[in-house]
Amino acid sequence: MDFEIKYKDAMARIGTFETPHGKVTTPNLMPVVHPGKQTLDVKKFGAEIVITNSYIIYKNEKLKEKALKDGVHELINFPGTIETDSGSFQLSVYGDIDINNEEVIKFQEAIGTDIGTSLDIPTAPYVKREEAEDDLKITIERAEEASKVRKDLLLNSVVQGSTFPDLREYCAKEISKFDADIYPIGAVVPLMEMYRYADLVDAVMYSMRGLPEDKPRHLMGAGHPMVFALAVAMGCDLFDSAAYILYANKDRFMMPDGTLKLENLIEMPCSCRVCTEYTVDELRQMSQEKRAKLIAEHNLHISFAEIRRIRQAIVDGELMKLVELRCRSHPFLLDGLRRLEEYQEDMEKLNPSSKKSAFFYTGYESLSRSEIPRHLRKLENVKPTSKNLIILPHTRKPYSKYVNREYIKKYTPKIATYYSNTDITDYSDSDIVVADVPFGIIPLALDEFYPLAQNESPAIHDENSKKFIREIIGEYSRKYENILIHNKVVEKFDLENLCLVEDELILPEAKVTDFDRLKTIADYQFGTGSGESLFGNDPDKVKIEKSRKTGKIRHVYEGDDIIVNMRASDGFLILSDLGAIRLHKHLEKPNMRVVVAEDSEPFAKKGKSVFNKFVLDCDEKIRRNDEVLIVNKDDELLACGKSLLSSYEIKDFNTGQAIKTRKIKKFQE
Amino acid sequence: MDFEIKYKDAMARIGTFETPHGKVTTPNLMPVVHPGKQTLDVKKFGAEIVITNSYIIYKNEKLKEKALKDGVHELINFPGTIETDSGSFQLSVYGDIDINNEEVIKFQEAIGTDIGTSLDIPTAPYVKREEAEDDLKITIERAEEASKVRKDLLLNSVVQGSTFPDLREYCAKEISKFDADIYPIGAVVPLMEMYRYADLVDAVMYSMRGLPEDKPRHLMGAGHPMVFALAVAMGCDLFDSAAYILYANKDRFMMPDGTLKLENLIEMPCSCRVCTEYTVDELRQMSQEKRAKLIAEHNLHISFAEIRRIRQAIVDGELMKLVELRCRSHPFLLDGLRRLEEYQEDMEKLNPSSKKSAFFYTGYESLSRSEIPRHLRKLENVKPTSKNLIILPHTRKPYSKYVNREYIKKYTPKIATYYSNTDITDYSDSDIVVADVPFGIIPLALDEFYPLAQNESPAIHDENSKKFIREIIGEYSRKYENILIHNKVVEKFDLENLCLVEDELILPEAKVTDFDRLKTIADYQFGTGSGESLFGNDPDKVKIEKSRKTGKIRHVYEGDDIIVNMRASDGFLILSDLGAIRLHKHLEKPNMRVVVAEDSEPFAKKGKSVFNKFVLDCDEKIRRNDEVLIVNKDDELLACGKSLLSSYEIKDFNTGQAIKTRKIKKFQE
Repeated sequence: MDFEIKYKDAMARIGTFETPHGKVTTPNLMPVVHPGKQTLDVKKFGAEIVITNSYIIYKNEKLKEKALKDGVHELINFPGTIETDSGSFQLSVYGDIDINNEEVIKFQEAIGTDIGTSLDIPTAPYVKREEAEDDLKITIERAEEASKVRKDLLLNSVVQGSTFPDLREYCAKEISKFDADIYPIGAVVPLMEMYRYADLVDAVMYSMRGLPEDKPRHLMGAGHPMVFALAVAMGCDLFDSAAYILYANKDRFMMPDGTLKLENLIEMPCSCRVCTEYTVDELRQMSQEKRAKLIAEHNLHISFAEIRRIRQAIVDGELMKLVELRCRSHPFLLDGLRRLEEYQEDMEKLNPSSKKSAFFYTGYESLSRSEIPRHLRKLENVKPTSKNLIILPHTRKPYSKYVNREYIKKYTPKIATYYSNTDITDYSDSDIVVADVPFGIIPLALDEFYPLAQNESPAIHDENSKKFIREIIGEYSRKYENILIHNKVVEKFDLENLCLVEDELILPEAKVTDFDRLKTIADYQFGTGSGESLFGNDPDKVKIEKSRKTGKIRHVYEGDDIIVNMRASDGFLILSDLGAIRLHKHLEKPNMRVVVAEDSEPFAKKGKSVFNKFVLDCDEKIRRNDEVLIVNKDDELLACGKSLLSSYEIKDFNTGQAIKTRKIKKFQE
Repeated sequence: MDFEIKYKDAMARIGTFETPHGKVTTPNLMPVVHPGKQTLDVKKFGAEIVITNSYIIYKNEKLKEKALKDGVHELINFPGTIETDSGSFQLSVYGDIDINNEEVIKFQEAIGTDIGTSLDIPTAPYVKREEAEDDLKITIERAEEASKVRKDLLLNSVVQGSTFPDLREYCAKEISKFDADIYPIGAVVPLMEMYRYADLVDAVMYSMRGLPEDKPRHLMGAGHPMVFALAVAMGCDLFDSAAYILYANKDRFMMPDGTLKLENLIEMPCSCRVCTEYTVDELRQMSQEKRAKLIAEHNLHISFAEIRRIRQAIVDGELMKLVELRCRSHPFLLDGLRRLEEYQEDMEKLNPSSKKSAFFYTGYESLSRSEIPRHLRKLENVKPTSKNLIILPHTRKPYSKYVNREYIKKYTPKIATYYSNTDITDYSDSDIVVADVPFGIIPLALDEFYPLAQNESPAIHDENSKKFIREIIGEYSRKYENILIHNKVVEKFDLENLCLVEDELILPEAKVTDFDRLKTIADYQFGTGSGESLFGNDPDKVKIEKSRKTGKIRHVYEGDDIIVNMRASDGFLILSDLGAIRLHKHLEKPNMRVVVAEDSEPFAKKGKSVFNKFVLDCDEKIRRNDEVLIVNKDDELLACGKSLLSSYEIKDFNTGQAIKTRKIKKFQE
């Protein structure tokens, strides 16, 4: 089964896959439909895929007969994709069931299920390691057996391993070898019931380390909308919900930020049909059955609305903001979010390098979003041009325009209290940077680059942010001999152990020439020295064309040849022929490279998209939206382009596009 | 006009008032209805009150004629309460209008408006002080004039003062003298448009300082649901929304966490009828007029749903949690929330002492909620019973049950690294407390008292919480000579400058006798020494009856007389006859007192509710749900009871109940 990724944010994907009964878009919610008693027609709520239990069908003669005769789609009256569970849940509850793995796979195939499930062993959380290992062995064996037994059936293969993160990763790696179609993460319901969200994050993130990127993952038993955003951000694509009806039967309203009990309600909680057409009193007075149906309707409306909000957030590149909002619904969910900080590196590997929306700070947890460690890493590419560093406080953006007005022209010569670690008093030749939350240090030349230009944070700082900025200032200052820090920076971030400059100092004007800006951006975006290799050292040799409307750089020429263009939305440099050739010469293998197979060389040269299956290798630093160089295995430059996936995805995917190619005229056949 | 408060949380109120056209429940949203062109029938969305513009009616001959003949209710076809604006907005935009204050009041009265507005001067933010003062003078004069001119018309009197907080407070105090019915806070729209939420908080909170508690307040021009929760928490009761239609005309969807543009949407964002019945593509393809009507419908559904969520949160005592969630929608709204920290004292004065829901920590901003400074103040009532203090880390709640298992029985004698500031090694006679986020220090005897038992916070602490707990530990430790701190506390909160205890120490078992528990609670709840005055010093003299189900204290007797009962929901001591008499003797005036007028003495003695108008004075420490002593002006005890309001409300209100009284048998006539 092919899974295609359309949009990415954090580890989340909007993707599509197709089964014999239609196309499914992820993230998605699969309502659980009881094969014997269906309360609501879930199609009407937008369900594209449902889940039902093959073991219940198997155990009930009447259902079994009908399912074998007419198929499961007829049985539960659902024309779309149907996934069936195997009876593992019953196994975990009753300890034993009277069907084996092979039988259950064959039965699912026989009743025409689209996606079947092997009989895995759901190991409870917090068991002894030995028990988890023993169970896991069986789960893995059965996953292998299922893959051999099945014919056309699409297959779920469940990741187990209890609360041993390494076992989760091991299991994921092992079962991935048998080429299943969807990878559920199993036995996490008890963790959610106990509100052990930090442990849930561990279980999911370690599973992800072992799972391929090119298949959907299903967080089994997760049906409450309050966890959807967090789970999607970790790379989960599918949820199942029996909760909508189970909660309704207990008069409980699901909300994206928790659960409300009818007995406590004075007002209907949302904007759905049920909440606007009925009052609390009306619900209380009606029969339990009728009421449960209406509350189930609310629960489904809210759940699907949350799925839609999450998809929208992925497209907008705002998923982490939504996650950070949702995770404050419960302190233990917040613990989950805070635990996620430990997986920064995993998240960064799959996070796009440029997004549609600005980076909105919601609390110190935002400091763990991939954009920040990535900025700090890329900042290493930018080398000092002076022994002196001046650190200014933030202003309106772009900083290079406003720091002069705010801190230099406006107050000169009134600047009185600066701090320095040296006796130097002449700072006229200095690198000038701004210290700000959340990115720490922003060289003025980068102030129009995404996301350094596209972010907002509150003016009142929390202690974590202050500490974070202090550490970055400390680290960055090591590159310089003399550092002058504006007193506002000192105050804002509680810097200590600094020497007070007794004399008044006059700051040099913060000038960033277009040429310096281009070179700094090139170094930051592509690697140290890229600026010099692209633009040389003589500003007069390049011609810079700016937008009349915005005054921003648009095209950079050498003679009549474009070297690079600058993308208006994010300030990224987009390589032209000359730029690509120069960078290819300057940057060593494997930097920026996507190595394609011989068969696809001619297509790449013509500017046709590079497909994943033709990629032999690629620089692991490549992220979605990054500029790349397309080369053959001898490292001959074929074309350049924009990556549509992260390097980690390109390596896992065998279908779909990897690179949106731009041809290089000179190399065309 | 009488305003009655039904529920309270933070400074928020669920209240009701009545106009000639019906009852209005607050918080509420008044959709703005254009007198000439009404797009949606807002009644159907649950609108109880709408706002329209009397100046537009006045200026249009046709509308004017119809309004004077049939009344404004007929004109805009709305049978409920109608508020009219005066033309101040037009004045602020065009600089001049052709009606004066007296005329506009009379005109509003003539067209049968329920609530009219005087012609105040909306001073823009950030003007020069002189301008703000000049404008204010006119606003105040006109407020006075309006109060004299109006006959039966209910009157809005608008608080102005630009961004000068002291002028806001001054204006509020001045206009309050003229006895208007509703107090709008004006000219804040530019602040919201500029996202200057911290300044908005200043403007609103200073206005509140000058306004009486017994009248509704209207945050003029606030129509976006993302600000409702914050504004309600600050004491705003009414909002008006023209935004639902203005945003719709620009294809914008309002959400409680921001605004979404149709052009960027891939999915419909909420659970409302419009979002579930239409797709994004369908909306894009229909006529602008039809689309705007549907988006306006969405906007109203979402706005009223948010009002309902807020009311529910007030009833549940969870409003601040909702505010903290909503304020993360935008970094500058978060600045507003963070600014609110400076108004802790204002908030605390009106915040109930006991609530239905647990205290859920959502981030360090939760540390500013009233419950925390109040706990720290009440903690001062509890005096040391030993020279030694042991500080243990948190466990499951109730702490007194689990600290022994976790830290004493379980590890004894393995406890190795404790820290102390002395050489004392015998800690067998010690006060034992737990250090935990968010309440800092919790003596074990208080571990079942609200909210010390009813709270959750994440296990992974932010720096602000650590710093906060460090400071509280430091402060609390001053009361003791020898302090022993468990190493887990030291690690969790990064305590520094402590001496390491080299030897292994064996901790005493953390025992809390029922008698000690009662005395500590009494001191904490009522004041130092209250425990001794209620229960004496001999445990054998009191009889403690416990719940068979929960094992918690329920009744405390001396002989056959009940002294106090303990309320199961929050652990508060509820005074019985004997308890009230003893506390009255022990606590000096004005502690716990509500002083009632002579006329109401007989009613109080019979156990009838005390009404606000009969209260002469009261202890300003009294909060909603607090136990109080009802006395006459000679401080003779008449009865006891539970306060239904804060002291600050009791002083402002002239109608409604203040105290739910319990009679004292002995004092009955």
